Amino acid sequence: MMIIMKANATPQQVEAVIEQVKRAGLNVHLSQGVEATIIGAVGETHNLPVERFERLDGVQLVQRITQPYKLASRQFHPEDSVITLDGLSVGGNEIAVIAGPCSVESRSQILETAQAAKEAGASALRGGVFKPRTSPYAFQGLGEEGLELLAEARELTGLPIVVEIMSQVQVEVMVKYVDVLQVGARNMQNFNLLRAIGATRTPVLLKRGLSATVEELLMSAEYILAGGNTRVMLCERGIRTFETSTRNTTDINAIPVLKHATHLPVILDPSHSTGHANYVAAIARAGIAAGADGLIIEVHPDPASAVSDGKHSLKPEQFAELIQQVGQIAQIMGRSLVTSRAFQAAKNGWA
Amino acid sequence: MMIIMKANATPQQVEAVIEQVKRAGLNVHLSQGVEATIIGAVGETHNLPVERFERLDGVQLVQRITQPYKLASRQFHPEDSVITLDGLSVGGNEIAVIAGPCSVESRSQILETAQAAKEAGASALRGGVFKPRTSPYAFQGLGEEGLELLAEARELTGLPIVVEIMSQVQVEVMVKYVDVLQVGARNMQNFNLLRAIGATRTPVLLKRGLSATVEELLMSAEYILAGGNTRVMLCERGIRTFETSTRNTTDINAIPVLKHATHLPVILDPSHSTGHANYVAAIARAGIAAGADGLIIEVHPDPASAVSDGKHSLKPEQFAELIQQVGQIAQIMGRSLVTSRAFQAAKNGWA
Amino acid sequence: MMIIMKANATPQQVEAVIEQVKRAGLNVHLSQGVEATIIGAVGETHNLPVERFERLDGVQLVQRITQPYKLASRQFHPEDSVITLDGLSVGGNEIAVIAGPCSVESRSQILETAQAAKEAGASALRGGVFKPRTSPYAFQGLGEEGLELLAEARELTGLPIVVEIMSQVQVEVMVKYVDVLQVGARNMQNFNLLRAIGATRTPVLLKRGLSATVEELLMSAEYILAGGNTRVMLCERGIRTFETSTRNTTDINAIPVLKHATHLPVILDPSHSTGHANYVAAIARAGIAAGADGLIIEVHPDPASAVSDGKHSLKPEQFAELIQQVGQIAQIMGRSLVTSRAFQAAKNGWA
Amino acid sequence: MMIIMKANATPQQVEAVIEQVKRAGLNVHLSQGVEATIIGAVGETHNLPVERFERLDGVQLVQRITQPYKLASRQFHPEDSVITLDGLSVGGNEIAVIAGPCSVESRSQILETAQAAKEAGASALRGGVFKPRTSPYAFQGLGEEGLELLAEARELTGLPIVVEIMSQVQVEVMVKYVDVLQVGARNMQNFNLLRAIGATRTPVLLKRGLSATVEELLMSAEYILAGGNTRVMLCERGIRTFETSTRNTTDINAIPVLKHATHLPVILDPSHSTGHANYVAAIARAGIAAGADGLIIEVHPDPASAVSDGKHSLKPEQFAELIQQVGQIAQIMGRSLVTSRAFQAAKNGWA
Repeated sequence: MMIIMKANATPQQVEAVIEQVKRAGLNVHLSQGVEATIIGAVGETHNLPVERFERLDGVQLVQRITQPYKLASRQFHPEDSVITLDGLSVGGNEIAVIAGPCSVESRSQILETAQAAKEAGASALRGGVFKPRTSPYAFQGLGEEGLELLAEARELTGLPIVVEIMSQVQVEVMVKYVDVLQVGARNMQNFNLLRAIGATRTPVLLKRGLSATVEELLMSAEYILAGGNTRVMLCERGIRTFETSTRNTTDINAIPVLKHATHLPVILDPSHSTGHANYVAAIARAGIAAGADGLIIEVHPDPASAVSDGKHSLKPEQFAELIQQVGQIAQIMGRSLVTSRAFQAAKNGWA
Repeated sequence: MMIIMKANATPQQVEAVIEQVKRAGLNVHLSQGVEATIIGAVGETHNLPVERFERLDGVQLVQRITQPYKLASRQFHPEDSVITLDGLSVGGNEIAVIAGPCSVESRSQILETAQAAKEAGASALRGGVFKPRTSPYAFQGLGEEGLELLAEARELTGLPIVVEIMSQVQVEVMVKYVDVLQVGARNMQNFNLLRAIGATRTPVLLKRGLSATVEELLMSAEYILAGGNTRVMLCERGIRTFETSTRNTTDINAIPVLKHATHLPVILDPSHSTGHANYVAAIARAGIAAGADGLIIEVHPDPASAVSDGKHSLKPEQFAELIQQVGQIAQIMGRSLVTSRAFQAAKNGWA
Repeated sequence: MMIIMKANATPQQVEAVIEQVKRAGLNVHLSQGVEATIIGAVGETHNLPVERFERLDGVQLVQRITQPYKLASRQFHPEDSVITLDGLSVGGNEIAVIAGPCSVESRSQILETAQAAKEAGASALRGGVFKPRTSPYAFQGLGEEGLELLAEARELTGLPIVVEIMSQVQVEVMVKYVDVLQVGARNMQNFNLLRAIGATRTPVLLKRGLSATVEELLMSAEYILAGGNTRVMLCERGIRTFETSTRNTTDINAIPVLKHATHLPVILDPSHSTGHANYVAAIARAGIAAGADGLIIEVHPDPASAVSDGKHSLKPEQFAELIQQVGQIAQIMGRSLVTSRAFQAAKNGWA
Repeated sequence: MMIIMKANATPQQVEAVIEQVKRAGLNVHLSQGVEATIIGAVGETHNLPVERFERLDGVQLVQRITQPYKLASRQFHPEDSVITLDGLSVGGNEIAVIAGPCSVESRSQILETAQAAKEAGASALRGGVFKPRTSPYAFQGLGEEGLELLAEARELTGLPIVVEIMSQVQVEVMVKYVDVLQVGARNMQNFNLLRAIGATRTPVLLKRGLSATVEELLMSAEYILAGGNTRVMLCERGIRTFETSTRNTTDINAIPVLKHATHLPVILDPSHSTGHANYVAAIARAGIAAGADGLIIEVHPDPASAVSDGKHSLKPEQFAELIQQVGQIAQIMGRSLVTSRAFQAAKNGWA
């Protein structure tokens, strides 16, 4: 960390800053330039907020040299993390495609979707049972009953299940049922929840907040990793911008940026990042071409009657077509869809 | 709610939409225009997401005519809500100024700040004990010990205390101690938390999320109001934009927009909306001139040694000067600072 | 266009709005609903700003049913426009790749780059001679001398040249030299320039403004088309958001959105939309996978010594690799790179 | 300027950077830290883009210590610039209020508005004759005929006139008629226009672009100042964000930020920054309370029939009320409205 003093900073101010750096357990490297005095703070700086020094008198600016996250950083973990769960491995050569409805609505709906998703080539099943809804008057999910239906769908299809968790009080029931805990965009900085999840050993799909930077997403991953739960997947799901022709703006740049900054797998959610069924396949292809390790896609047997998010849900036949296209892109990227193998295995009675 | 069909929508599609409108318990008003068929959906539409109709075949767009919130709307509650707690009333003629440190750090720090804030003219005391920190390695707050110190500060000064709550599991301990539950920007859409707070009868200060629209802020207020907790104050604390010269962008427009849309009091937080002590007073004045009902300001006896957010904290003497300026603006707006009276009362032994 | 009156609008207000609709040359279709009176304005509405009615007393909101652009709309021109110039055709089955340095710096630099770009597979050459620079102290371009060097490069390689025009006063000299007039992001709403270009018959590459919506980009295209110049290509080059890890945010969603809304070809500029050479190839692949008709890429023989934008320029060998990858993606999309053919033709002496 | 090398930068890379720094005419100050080597580049760095060094091999980041603008900076010109024109002085103790219609539409409209604006207390008259319109089909202004009408209005009322210039080819006719050249948001980075205006000696009102940072606004001012035209006023007119309840987001923070960074006067345009007549007065008061040196307000005798921007135009009586309120805020800020004096002078036959 480098602390650049103002041109007119007094020797007392420089001294006071040095004092604070030492108090923070860091070593000082002083450089008296012609235009500016620079105080290098050397040591374990990733756990120090820059504001600690920014507010001191005479300081012009504070510049980090190392990142504020460590466990999530590729610097300290150069090779890709591959996360395995049952037949599924994410972050390696295979591309994972998680598919399913926004909400679990009924037994027939989730079993039918699970079957269709699997046949089309999905590698995991998603479905919400606790729903974050902007309006208190909207459908809020089936709760534990929904978890049981999902468990039944898993038994039927062999697909691992990915379910959103909304509060630390749901941890106990969730880890009993689900294969992957999904943290939604609105909870990306629900630090109590992150900490509670960090204490489990259940894999996590962490979605980026609507206005979170890539660095903040990595800091939230760091919360979970710091608790000892190392199986974290990151998910780009669109950010909020001024553009209104789509529900969100897919930050496709975030994919190569994340792949460069971290060893954790990166998943793209083109359903929420576009908000329109019409655009999902194009953005799914783009995501895999940009280097994403997987996709999460909303699929519903009858989008027009879905209780939530029907606008961007694909019908099973549309999803099957998407899988075809994505599979071809994956091949060019030197990768393959997990899906086909899982499907074969299932056909052979493995699931 | 008006559902505008595409120019080439078939009679079957129109029929299917009408069917869905009826199924939602609404009456249908059909208008066959030259360019478009419009289906009016009449009745209790505020609890229906527009997407329920947007995704149907043949629909071009769905336009709400009434707002998606009701209890928060000025339409159904034209006069201003005035929220009283002890000597403090917010939303009426008086301007409330909540002041205090970002975090409670120690007994001497909080008692000293409380005393200084009161002397300068604050009407309530703020202080964090559970801190939402981007980094898992940063200071996370004193917890219940901090609540006890705040209670002591209240006893000493007579100032009501405003404390951030981060999780539904903290409700029980928080309502025992605090006068106002603050919901932070990162939790504005933590719906489980909102619901839990709605079940209490403790007043709430609800902060706008970093990228939340004004309408979403009102929807979050609706969650709390729908639970029966009517004492909700809204807080503009800056939104995230592309501009980097300040930490956030104060959405000053939101103040008249909110005062027009809702009867709930509106508070401005210029400390977080600017992020720089240098700019806090100017934006505090602007907020009151724009019609805000109060301010929440970070004050610290020694900003340079604060464990968090020192960069935008005011020293007590800076805060006293701000109070002078704001008081003059309030007068022009036909209002007065609660502060002086509370202070007088305290001097006369009332507090 | 539909004008929705407020619930409490008076008959006089309704009458006044109807009067204005008629005065605008439109027919009126009146619908008296239970909750709202709706005035349909039927006729040539694409040239009427909605504000013309929004500001009238008693109006709640005005909703367009048809788009505000017409010549650019796919509604009135369903098949893709294919723009041809010399050997190059853009918008059909072939993918065009425009490559070259940010600025023309010297004869050797531009000839060398043109040759290298062509050998790697570029289908056109770009190069700036009038440079829009944020700082008045930065290099501003070689002017007409640069145009002559570009013309020489074209003669040498057979590649058509694409050059940015910054002002209507440059039209005369530019059309003498260039094959495609590029309008930069900062000039997307320089309406005098758009009008002047609309009066020429030189093909145009119109870049999206930093904070322009997709609809505004199409409105700017409409300016050029309305002047009779039909050969307009649109270019997504990143928008400005809160994210700082890349220079801009590539709005990849804009590609399928534009392909759906307009018949004009859509080009992606991953050099500016990322701002980092490291990320250009990943985003180029994503763009083609999302359905873009071409790419514009900055290439420089020695990025480290470029006078501008060296940070995101590719070296010729990096560009050659990108072409390989993009060519494979194109094939999956049922398309091919123009490049190979042009290159073959050139080798056979055709260029 | 400080160039921070990567931890693993080679001595050759450090040497190459030093070479480039020297070639740029700067002195080198080398600091070998424990974690990083820092190369200080000392001298005239404000005219060097940081990218010149960012792209060199082994460079981690480049940090400016001094601002990239100089003539606009308060650092080199600590006292406020006061710009005088006729009876009007902007940037000193007096607050200037520029008022008038979006477009000059007819002789009676502009003369009537000018008279009403003056009586209400305006200190200058605005009116557009060349209009930047998003749609090519919208009204584009009266051109030189409009300038003559404005000149007549000036003669009648004594109010200086402020008119938007859209292209460098309009400079000649504009400087013949107008007192202040207004540069619109869409032209803030039309560098050819800025340069042409810099060559005149007519005062300038430079509006911030929709997505321009404060620093970019100052860089555009620098273009004009560098040409020798020192009478530049800056104008905050709202930025584009995700919020849709107002047309733009007033960046009220920009007012104290600009007053801190530059000596140039700062004007607020609450008409465009809100887009709704209802909110203009609140934001006008806020602007003056935040330290703005003046306001520019749209006033129209009959907003409902205005050919453009009627939605946010005030009626003369609303404007008169705003002037009253703003005058009181000005007084608290230790300032006064120019308006009253000008008005008195006019009454006494001075105008």
